[in-house]
Amino acid sequence: MAKNAFYAQSGGVTAVINASACGVIETARKHADKIGKVFAGRNGIIGALTEDLIDTTAESDDAIAALRYTPSGAFGSCRFKLKDLEANKREYDRLIEVFKAHDIGYFFYNGGGDSADTCYKVSQLSEKMGYPVQAIHVPKTVDNDLPITDTCPGFGSVAKYIAVSTREASFDVRSMALTSTKVFVIEVMGRHAGWIAAAGGLAADKDNDIPIVILFPEIDFDQDKFMAKVKAMVDKHGYCSIVVSEGAKHADGRFLAEQGTRDAFGHAQLGGAAPVVANMVKDALGYKFHWAVADYLQRAARHIASGTDVEQAYAVGKSAVEFAIEGHNSIMPTIVRKSSNPYKWEIGEAPLSKVANVEKMMPRDFISEDGFGITEACREYLVPLIQGENYPPYENGMPSYVTLKNQAAPKVLPAFEL
Amino acid sequence: MAKNAFYAQSGGVTAVINASACGVIETARKHADKIGKVFAGRNGIIGALTEDLIDTTAESDDAIAALRYTPSGAFGSCRFKLKDLEANKREYDRLIEVFKAHDIGYFFYNGGGDSADTCYKVSQLSEKMGYPVQAIHVPKTVDNDLPITDTCPGFGSVAKYIAVSTREASFDVRSMALTSTKVFVIEVMGRHAGWIAAAGGLAADKDNDIPIVILFPEIDFDQDKFMAKVKAMVDKHGYCSIVVSEGAKHADGRFLAEQGTRDAFGHAQLGGAAPVVANMVKDALGYKFHWAVADYLQRAARHIASGTDVEQAYAVGKSAVEFAIEGHNSIMPTIVRKSSNPYKWEIGEAPLSKVANVEKMMPRDFISEDGFGITEACREYLVPLIQGENYPPYENGMPSYVTLKNQAAPKVLPAFEL
Repeated sequence: MAKNAFYAQSGGVTAVINASACGVIETARKHADKIGKVFAGRNGIIGALTEDLIDTTAESDDAIAALRYTPSGAFGSCRFKLKDLEANKREYDRLIEVFKAHDIGYFFYNGGGDSADTCYKVSQLSEKMGYPVQAIHVPKTVDNDLPITDTCPGFGSVAKYIAVSTREASFDVRSMALTSTKVFVIEVMGRHAGWIAAAGGLAADKDNDIPIVILFPEIDFDQDKFMAKVKAMVDKHGYCSIVVSEGAKHADGRFLAEQGTRDAFGHAQLGGAAPVVANMVKDALGYKFHWAVADYLQRAARHIASGTDVEQAYAVGKSAVEFAIEGHNSIMPTIVRKSSNPYKWEIGEAPLSKVANVEKMMPRDFISEDGFGITEACREYLVPLIQGENYPPYENGMPSYVTLKNQAAPKVLPAFEL
Repeated sequence: MAKNAFYAQSGGVTAVINASACGVIETARKHADKIGKVFAGRNGIIGALTEDLIDTTAESDDAIAALRYTPSGAFGSCRFKLKDLEANKREYDRLIEVFKAHDIGYFFYNGGGDSADTCYKVSQLSEKMGYPVQAIHVPKTVDNDLPITDTCPGFGSVAKYIAVSTREASFDVRSMALTSTKVFVIEVMGRHAGWIAAAGGLAADKDNDIPIVILFPEIDFDQDKFMAKVKAMVDKHGYCSIVVSEGAKHADGRFLAEQGTRDAFGHAQLGGAAPVVANMVKDALGYKFHWAVADYLQRAARHIASGTDVEQAYAVGKSAVEFAIEGHNSIMPTIVRKSSNPYKWEIGEAPLSKVANVEKMMPRDFISEDGFGITEACREYLVPLIQGENYPPYENGMPSYVTLKNQAAPKVLPAFEL
């Protein structure tokens, strides 16, 4: 009889992670001879540990199809990283217990770098603990920092949102600059890698001569050089837009705005670089400013998702199931770019041993020599990723996103303390 | 011979103020027998004073049509309020000089409350200074605080943006709440009136049971009551979204976040209520938070403009010209609501004497009894205003907004010191 599958969402959610869930579940439903039920972990891997398994067979085909255009994590996500097998055998024993109890032979884990690490550990269970499970990682991260894959589903939509929003706000500040706001600062996500900040550079193009100054995490902040750049832009254009990454930092490693709190993975929780930069400009140059912090709006903005991104998010979910059916283990479907113009891509695969815990930074030649802009090579890379508008359906003026029933499968095991 | 017209944009710009410009110019072009050239003031009324007149006849019909879907103020706006005639006769003399020199008999001023005041003063020039000019105010303000008109063009699009964004971010935080963010705070515009904040309430509806707590400028902030409300929401739903108006204030009148700076009109410049509220919640209840400040993004977001709003913005521009041709002076076209469900509206008119310097607050019965939400009456008012998606055209993944040539008409007068 066909083994059941476990699917879970992990880490920060995106506008299209549910499109991957849609790809997984729809593809599994088409292969009922190979894959039985798809159980989804309520709140990610925690759902597996606590045996809180959502029975997705209770959801209609229409509801599953609606995941394709619904942002966020429909089954709940979590920030929870499994320790090494040696350090915490108890959790792995429990996973195997739950998998056995529910006849789970496939493990699909939808997340970023930390999650790839968890997925990699699970993929080793066959070998190390004698329980046969095929673990496939489904890539997702707005930060675009997974290695090997050309891009990460989730990134293209944030990139489109930031590019569009920066263009729109730049048009706005241009209108106001003579007597009012001269500098607009937008803070964007990207803890260590400047991919999202780079997307702000797409606000300008050959038809839109918009002055954009970008502060990348990859480039140490140099206040004098930055002020000179902003002043030159305002002198020339009358105004300037600044895109600052939440991860922008001083030469000594301090973030421009560190709140002093840390998330569950121990990463510094950032936010507030925009007001810091805006006030710095005001103090040095006297320009009136406005600032915005996009925060969750950017990664949840399914209303302006990239068509390419939605398609790729679905494709990695679908391919994960197909790879599993073909017998693969410990891999991640990747996006392989065949050409940029015209844009052509296909699905490839990467071994999880090479994905887990590796962060892909912006190549230095994607950042302009002065450190404040993007190069043509970067533009050539980014532009295909924001192609296409994939609008959700609207009802009564609002996008009609689905909320699933999320019925739990009956528990058969004793409770487990996290 | 047909008199020329002067059109200018004033105050903060919106996603649809250019749709009004489009309505003015396209309608004037259709009535070439009645209206000669349309000159646009570069940077609003400053363009009139400095004789910096943009000759819109240099723009193609296609470029003018593209204004309908281009956010911001295509001719530049300004924050500049004419003093009373008695206090500053020099500026009015100059206006008349410029109008005479360019044979201007129509004055279309596109703005909010302060601009309605300027327009009203100009409309008195015939009577007080013997120069015949018909002055029509074209309503525009995201704050929705103009009297008499049912709504202000610009508001519906911000409302839609905030409603959609709050729903999307709420889905996001719901996904994260178990192990991470439990409270999401979004700060929205609205200096004195809570209309935009109210729109955040539309994120929830009968199909979307989302816990939303709104902080209105109309309701004095009561920290204990607020914390009790947030705690009750998180206890029940596991998470909570908070929409805070930039104008939310303490009982003693202090804004939750006053930066201490003032704009050119002497209004306090606000910003930063979201981090204040988020940290307050963290300190009192310990919840992990995220916060966003939408700032210009909300009013520039033409990509998610309300179809109703775009249509009404165009209509008030068109009607302004038609009223002028019919000989009206000192009026403002208004939106008159005939019914809410189905939504029916038509254009009316209001005398500027009753519009200038009057602010329309939220009626108390639009705010729930506890002060943290919207009532059914408010919902019935708001829902029609966000109907319809009027997407701009895209090219290469980005909205193709127009930047006009903005050629200046030759100056014939001596320079004028502002």
